[in-house]
Amino acid sequence: MSSKKENSAPFAYEGLERVIHERARLSILSSLAAHPQGLVFNDLKSMCALTDGNLSRQIQLLQEAGFVEVWKGTKNNRPQTLCRLTEDGRARFLEYINELEQVVSNALRTEARKPRAAGAGGLSPA
Amino acid sequence: MSSKKENSAPFAYEGLERVIHERARLSILSSLAAHPQGLVFNDLKSMCALTDGNLSRQIQLLQEAGFVEVWKGTKNNRPQTLCRLTEDGRARFLEYINELEQVVSNALRTEARKPRAAGAGGLSPA
Repeated sequence: MSSKKENSAPFAYEGLERVIHERARLSILSSLAAHPQGLVFNDLKSMCALTDGNLSRQIQLLQEAGFVEVWKGTKNNRPQTLCRLTEDGRARFLEYINELEQVVSNALRTEARKPRAAGAGGLSPA
Repeated sequence: MSSKKENSAPFAYEGLERVIHERARLSILSSLAAHPQGLVFNDLKSMCALTDGNLSRQIQLLQEAGFVEVWKGTKNNRPQTLCRLTEDGRARFLEYINELEQVVSNALRTEARKPRAAGAGGLSPA
């Protein structure tokens, strides 16, 4: 089952882009993908169960990486921050989701076959 | 769409356990899940496209966290290291995969609806 690194590392999952994969950012991007009109800071915070500080940091990072737009304005006479996915952010998020689907389908295919764990042959515990 | 943190943070994805979620470890666990009989170090390295040092570190961490067993032995007269998922590791990996399925299905459900991004109302760019 060994294979050359160049053309086949079937479990390397190189499409799991680091910026997206970190859990807090994955939460934020998923929330925004589900709300194309954008979300104000407090709603995003609740949906992702993040603290103010962490959400601010991650939003800034995602903005710098071109995934989200940040808009300042007022709503009901209170200052608000609105976050939305950029077009490019949405496209890259969907590429990431395709790779996640691959991870899931690899795992579920194995589970369907489910051969029993064999003995360790001539090997002994470390 | 705002919601209480205690009972509904629909995008928090708390099942994305940190030990599993990191990409190198996700590669390793996926490979091992697909090979219940275990994999020797070099095959695992090729499948995951990891360096010796990184693979060693991650395997040790996964062993300490109870996900993998490490066996020492010889194969074709050469010393070998065999890694396998523990029963508990397999169960936790599958729980994680269930959560990943949720991430994917949330994203794809949104994409199927695909409303167009609305204007930003009274808000202006930051």
